[in-house]
Amino acid sequence: MEFIDRVAEAFLNTQKSICQTLEVADSKAHFSSDKWEKEIGGGVTRVLQQGKHIEKAAVNFSLVKGPYNKQMEKLLGEKGTSYAATGVSSIIHPTNVHVPIIHMNVRYFTLENGISWFGGGIDLTPHYIDPQQAAWFHQILKEICDRYEASFYPQFKTWADNYFYLEHRNETRGVGGIFFDRLKPENSEEAEKLLSFALDLGKAYGEIYASLIQKNGTKPQTEPQKKWQKLRRGRYVEFNLVYDRGTKFGLESGGNTESILLSMPPEANWVYNFTPEKGSPEEATLQLLKKDINWLKYGK
Amino acid sequence: MEFIDRVAEAFLNTQKSICQTLEVADSKAHFSSDKWEKEIGGGVTRVLQQGKHIEKAAVNFSLVKGPYNKQMEKLLGEKGTSYAATGVSSIIHPTNVHVPIIHMNVRYFTLENGISWFGGGIDLTPHYIDPQQAAWFHQILKEICDRYEASFYPQFKTWADNYFYLEHRNETRGVGGIFFDRLKPENSEEAEKLLSFALDLGKAYGEIYASLIQKNGTKPQTEPQKKWQKLRRGRYVEFNLVYDRGTKFGLESGGNTESILLSMPPEANWVYNFTPEKGSPEEATLQLLKKDINWLKYGK
Repeated sequence: MEFIDRVAEAFLNTQKSICQTLEVADSKAHFSSDKWEKEIGGGVTRVLQQGKHIEKAAVNFSLVKGPYNKQMEKLLGEKGTSYAATGVSSIIHPTNVHVPIIHMNVRYFTLENGISWFGGGIDLTPHYIDPQQAAWFHQILKEICDRYEASFYPQFKTWADNYFYLEHRNETRGVGGIFFDRLKPENSEEAEKLLSFALDLGKAYGEIYASLIQKNGTKPQTEPQKKWQKLRRGRYVEFNLVYDRGTKFGLESGGNTESILLSMPPEANWVYNFTPEKGSPEEATLQLLKKDINWLKYGK
Repeated sequence: MEFIDRVAEAFLNTQKSICQTLEVADSKAHFSSDKWEKEIGGGVTRVLQQGKHIEKAAVNFSLVKGPYNKQMEKLLGEKGTSYAATGVSSIIHPTNVHVPIIHMNVRYFTLENGISWFGGGIDLTPHYIDPQQAAWFHQILKEICDRYEASFYPQFKTWADNYFYLEHRNETRGVGGIFFDRLKPENSEEAEKLLSFALDLGKAYGEIYASLIQKNGTKPQTEPQKKWQKLRRGRYVEFNLVYDRGTKFGLESGGNTESILLSMPPEANWVYNFTPEKGSPEEATLQLLKKDINWLKYGK
C-alpha cells in the first residue's frame, strides 16, 4: 500500500473516532454521513446538527488524486505533474455560549516526484475568553508537540497567531493554538513520525471538545450573551470567507461548496458599531484577542 | 470649484435625499449620522436600524484624495501620481421577506493627469422572485439609461448579470439590474451627462424602495419564510465577502471596517444541504437565479 493510501486510511479512522467521541459528548444527536465523488477523488462529509450541546459540527474527510496544473504550481511554488492529497478537517459550533468554537485540520500532500508534506492545526475560539481554559488548551497542544520536536510548539503557536488573524478587525480569531504547513519529511522514518503527530492531534481534538462540553455545556446563558455569541459567529464568517486559504482555494477550485461552507455558523449577526460596556466580560474578551499572548502562563 | 468637488457635493445631496425618502417610507426609525475622517479624506456613514419596514439600511458617502500607489496602479491599470474619489453606496435589508434586498452605488474617480471615470449600479435581490416585480424594476432602469445612451441598458444589464454572480453556487445574487465601470468622459459635456446619469440613479433608488415597501411591506409572513429569508441573507454575505470588489478593496486598503461591513445583514443563517421542496416558491426562486433572463418580457 502506498504511503498516501495508508495516511488516508488513518485519517478516515480519525474522522470516525472524532464523530464517535462527539456523539457521546453531545448525548442526543448523531452524525449524518454523505459520500461524494468527483473525477479527481472523493470524500465523506459528516454533519451533526441541532444536538443538545452541539449546534453544528462538521467532520470532513477527503482523498483526491489528479493532474497538477499551472494554478497549483503557482500557488504552491513546487514543480510536478500529478498530485495526491488527503485530509480531515472539522469545525464545531456549540449551543452554549460558554463553550468555545473549535477547528482542526490535518492534511498530507504529495507530488509524483516524491516531494510531500504534512500540514494542519487546531485553534480555539471562545465567545468569552477564560485565560485558564486557554492555558489548559495550549498545555495539551504543547505536550503533543513536545513528544515530537521541542521547536514545534513555540513555532506553530506563533504561526497560528499570525494565521488566525482578522487584519481588518485587528483581532485574532480566538486564543489561537497551533498551525503548521509544509512539514516535509526527509525519509520514511520522518514521514511516520509526522503521520503519528497528525493522528495524535486528531485524537486530542475530540477529547478536548468532550471535556469543554462537560465543563461548560450546561452553564446558564442570558439573552445578551446569546446576542454576543451571534456577533462572534459573524467574525468567524468574516475570517473564513475573507482569509481562510482552505475555504478560498476550495471555492475557487470548484470543490464541494456545501462541504466547504460547513464551517459557516448556523446563525450569525452583524450590528453596526457594537461597543461592549466598559468593564464587561465582552470588553475583556476583545482585549485578549491579540497575538503573542503566552497563554501557558495562566495555567495553574 | 473643481469638478470632483461638485460631484461630491451632489453625491452628498443624493445621500441626504435617499435617507429622507427612506425615513418617510419606513415611518418609524431615523438615520443616525457618523462623520469619519482619515488622513486621505472622510465621509458620512448613515444607518437606520430596526425600523418598521427596514431592518437595516446603510447609506454611505465618502470623498478621498491622496497619493496614487503601486497597488492601486496594478489594480486599475492606469498610471498617475495622485487621485481623488467620491461615491455614495447603499444597501437595504428589509424586515418583511416579501420586500427585496437592494443595493446601489455611484462613484467618480479621477487622476491628476485628467483621466477620470464614473462607475456604479443598482441591483435587486428578492428573497422570493416575482417576475413582474423584476420587470417593473428593470423597466425603470431601462428608462433612465435610455435618456442617456441606447446602448447603456443592454450593456449594463449584462454586466450586472456577470458581476452579481456567485460562481461557487452557480447562482446570480438576485434579479440583477445594471452595473457599469470606467465610463470615461471625453470632455466636460460628457462629464456633466454622466454625472446627471449617476444622480438620476441615486434619485430613482430611494423611490424604487419606497414603492417596494408600500406594495409588499405588510404582506403576511410565515416562520418557514423567515427562515428562507435568513438563508438568502447568508448568500448575500457570501457574495459580499468572497466576490464584491468594493468590499475586498475597502478591507485590504485599510478603509473604515464598520462602514464597509454595513452591507452585512443583521442576521444570516446557514443550513447544510438545504433543498427546497419540489414545486415550492423557494425552488421557483432558485430556478430564476440565472444570468441572461430578459426580465422586461414579464412586464405587462
